[in-house]
Amino acid sequence: MPQTDPVPSVFDAATAVTRTEGGGLVADLDPGWDVGAGVLNGGYLLAVVARAALVGSPHPHPVALSASFLRATGPGPAALAVTAGPAGRTLAHSSVVLAGPDGPTLSAQVTTATLTGEPPAYSAAPPPEATPVERCLPPVDDGSLAHPLPEVGLRTRVHTRLDPVTAGWAVARPSDEPVMRAWVRLADGREPDPLALLLFADALPPTSWAIGRFGWAPTVQLQVLVRALPAPGWCLVEARASEIAGGWLDEDYRIWDSTGRLVAQSRQLARLPR
Amino acid sequence: MPQTDPVPSVFDAATAVTRTEGGGLVADLDPGWDVGAGVLNGGYLLAVVARAALVGSPHPHPVALSASFLRATGPGPAALAVTAGPAGRTLAHSSVVLAGPDGPTLSAQVTTATLTGEPPAYSAAPPPEATPVERCLPPVDDGSLAHPLPEVGLRTRVHTRLDPVTAGWAVARPSDEPVMRAWVRLADGREPDPLALLLFADALPPTSWAIGRFGWAPTVQLQVLVRALPAPGWCLVEARASEIAGGWLDEDYRIWDSTGRLVAQSRQLARLPR
Repeated sequence: MPQTDPVPSVFDAATAVTRTEGGGLVADLDPGWDVGAGVLNGGYLLAVVARAALVGSPHPHPVALSASFLRATGPGPAALAVTAGPAGRTLAHSSVVLAGPDGPTLSAQVTTATLTGEPPAYSAAPPPEATPVERCLPPVDDGSLAHPLPEVGLRTRVHTRLDPVTAGWAVARPSDEPVMRAWVRLADGREPDPLALLLFADALPPTSWAIGRFGWAPTVQLQVLVRALPAPGWCLVEARASEIAGGWLDEDYRIWDSTGRLVAQSRQLARLPR
Repeated sequence: MPQTDPVPSVFDAATAVTRTEGGGLVADLDPGWDVGAGVLNGGYLLAVVARAALVGSPHPHPVALSASFLRATGPGPAALAVTAGPAGRTLAHSSVVLAGPDGPTLSAQVTTATLTGEPPAYSAAPPPEATPVERCLPPVDDGSLAHPLPEVGLRTRVHTRLDPVTAGWAVARPSDEPVMRAWVRLADGREPDPLALLLFADALPPTSWAIGRFGWAPTVQLQVLVRALPAPGWCLVEARASEIAGGWLDEDYRIWDSTGRLVAQSRQLARLPR
């Protein structure tokens, strides 16, 4: 039987970074990963930035990435300026600046290392009780929802199955608690890895939606820690705000793989929707 | 009555940043803020970095700071290279690289803004029940402790009163939980502000000590969010690891002021002591 070419991953293609003849790194940011109004999703951008950091690193995985979102980033050609820091046997550091035609839009610190499958020595973050995927909200609005997920590019790239227990906001019954859970996976069938976890760490609507404060909550600064290589299958994401004050909102994400292992943690500071 | 000069703050002097004739920013890192072996405390360095970011910012407070610790930083002259990002009415971004005589040792993203005293619209992080300061462990070891706090410079600069409930490790009864609480304040009597909160966000011994894993746990990457202007008095700090795996440790800090208000949150990725 002739070998067939593997289907290329939409995610891998959209986050690809290539070296120019001049030696710089560039990406062609894909308009399909938007969150509305031509603005690209933050997690998608983190995956692109991490790929740029990995190009010159002796290690294969991003384990810590902190980014300041300087301006909204749109699709099209972008340059990635990498400043390599120390690189050792255990980890390597670099700084990456993503710039579009109008200048820098995202500036990040990236730490790369080599993650293993070693089981945790201590774990205090078991996965929460979540509704099974098949009983979560339908992926496409069937007309029953008062506030469905907006039909933006990101939702066609990341399958997002909202847990009805934390999706009262979608049926006009917002909660008192800014908490949201969902199962996520790449729509292209590609299994999760540390790059996909960076994407997932900013994949849900603003946590403030859970309490009925709809609107745009722009990320100001976001840190993601990748803690383990994820197993294949759906990942469970829980987002939680612990303090809303003075127009600012924090969002903590925890992500577990299909075996229930904690694979990523993130925290962002965002502006509260008006 | 003649006005007396106010006593200068040791913290303010040690974190001062000055502009050179060439226009650059420099600091003279104070050997008194070490954590042993001539290595300066990470939180102390964050305060210096934040001061550099504030020099060119229209806003007075650091609200988000993410730093990669490239190498251990020792005392002495240091240069601070600031790359200003966009600055608006609400916030301003910048990147700061701290370099000693042997090159960069710390690289950070800083967001500055103007914090207010506005009460929170939502808060899910009340202070934990903590032992009152006067019943915490003595600041200086009276010989009764199996594992007292090391007598490093940092402890003479930051009064650190360990809650005995989470200090079993100090009396040879380590816990199963990597959690540590302490009251902290500047030894010079200066009241807390956002810069001091950056210091406090890395002021405790490694959380792994709580479970009896002593040794050095070098910070790899640390994010601090400052959420409110702290009231005068002691701050309560709680540090907690939620996952220890593959030689890596996360540490979450939450800091409350003397009124019980959440004023800062931080998360770091560190290497586990051997």
